[in-house]
Amino acid sequence: MYSFLNTEFLPAEKTFVHVSDLAVQRGYGIFDFLKAVNGKIPFIDDYFDRFYRSAEFMQLPVSLTRAQLKEVVYELVQRNGEANAGIKMVLTGGYSPDGYEIATPNLIITQHALPMPSAKMLEQGVKIITHEFRREMPLVKSINYTTGVWLQRKVKEANAYDVLYHLHGEVSEFPRCNLFVVKENGHVVTPAVHVLEGITRKNILSLREGITVVEGKITLDDIWHASEVFLTSTTKRVVPIVQVDDVRIGTGKPGPVVQKILNELIRMENRPE
Amino acid sequence: MYSFLNTEFLPAEKTFVHVSDLAVQRGYGIFDFLKAVNGKIPFIDDYFDRFYRSAEFMQLPVSLTRAQLKEVVYELVQRNGEANAGIKMVLTGGYSPDGYEIATPNLIITQHALPMPSAKMLEQGVKIITHEFRREMPLVKSINYTTGVWLQRKVKEANAYDVLYHLHGEVSEFPRCNLFVVKENGHVVTPAVHVLEGITRKNILSLREGITVVEGKITLDDIWHASEVFLTSTTKRVVPIVQVDDVRIGTGKPGPVVQKILNELIRMENRPE
Repeated sequence: MYSFLNTEFLPAEKTFVHVSDLAVQRGYGIFDFLKAVNGKIPFIDDYFDRFYRSAEFMQLPVSLTRAQLKEVVYELVQRNGEANAGIKMVLTGGYSPDGYEIATPNLIITQHALPMPSAKMLEQGVKIITHEFRREMPLVKSINYTTGVWLQRKVKEANAYDVLYHLHGEVSEFPRCNLFVVKENGHVVTPAVHVLEGITRKNILSLREGITVVEGKITLDDIWHASEVFLTSTTKRVVPIVQVDDVRIGTGKPGPVVQKILNELIRMENRPE
Repeated sequence: MYSFLNTEFLPAEKTFVHVSDLAVQRGYGIFDFLKAVNGKIPFIDDYFDRFYRSAEFMQLPVSLTRAQLKEVVYELVQRNGEANAGIKMVLTGGYSPDGYEIATPNLIITQHALPMPSAKMLEQGVKIITHEFRREMPLVKSINYTTGVWLQRKVKEANAYDVLYHLHGEVSEFPRCNLFVVKENGHVVTPAVHVLEGITRKNILSLREGITVVEGKITLDDIWHASEVFLTSTTKRVVPIVQVDDVRIGTGKPGPVVQKILNELIRMENRPE
């Protein structure tokens, strides 16, 4: 397995950064995560848009042009010989002499196995818990997951699959996933603000046929009374949610809307460009 | 110059971590910063208390006992041959196979030059700016300084020395320093909550002779009407503040209280144990 660091492909196990990197010293950096499907990367331009946008906001110049970066990503997938894989691009604050000022960023690209939701999970749905929190820069794909990582223990203790952030009852997102709710009128709604703009979220928002998907405000109360609730992400596509804390959602089983959306997402991923 | 990584002293320039470390992947880790003064480390037990407390809260076991860690820190100072220096201990989330779950932490100890405030700064005082923000886990010395690092550009553009966080007008702390205000009644007050419990802050709170220092609530309005304002940290001790955004503080010059406190801090650092 190979990784890529700044200018060169390296054996993954030999890809190191110096401890003066601002990611190690101050948790400062951004990233994005792409998915190779049959050797192609669907929606790669959307991921690149977000990656360069996050980098610019965080004052981190990217040493490669979009064309160069695309070439590197595809060469990495080819070298590693896995047609289906996750690709993580991390851009750190670089080797900072004083451990605080932004320096020349380090670009780290690594390849990962893609853990998809199991068939059982899609058939039965999952339980989630909630936590009062809002990320400090939700629009930026920063590497700061302090609270999300820290909450993993609580998620496990509750036998839950993930944790949903809310502030004063207004829900936003999961640490790594977006939220969708099917309201009683059949409309599919996802929080409009204080969320990372997921690419899967964007694709679902683009659906038109036989379905109404909109951005809006969602409260915990809306969730408790929804007919369906589900989360979305690049790696997971969709995962139906049938329990939120101690509250059963809808019939307690995944509904027809989440299944329809899953089919649409698979179709979009495999659509010829 | 040497650093220390987990079990061994290494040349500082050869101290690397693998990119799978949770600090690089998710900005997850804690740290502390000590100061060697004439080869001794004043208040080392206070720093160690906080380091082990942060580590425990963040679910990061420290591989060394306090006695072992103390030995390593003193050996590092001795090897590097600088009697006055900063020592940074970072404990990361470790090499995480899935890039999200906490693994076996990496302990990184590095030595740094100590940039003390200049004589001019102490004589004339500095300007600071304000920013609406509160850290997500203020009591923990987490490595997450996303907002603090990001704000450096604004600090420079404003020709300021640092940036003070407030939320709805209630002030808390600087990214790396605590705040003190001398009220019109002569009482010295520092924010009681939503702050990192600095060791210098603790030492100032312990002062008794001829001075009243308390924890309390401080608003931006309190700051504008204070007779003196100053910030504190391990490396800086105290820095007088004479301007907050566009508002002149007190007479516009450092006052007698900050000078008295500086003298006390120097005395405490050099006190035999």
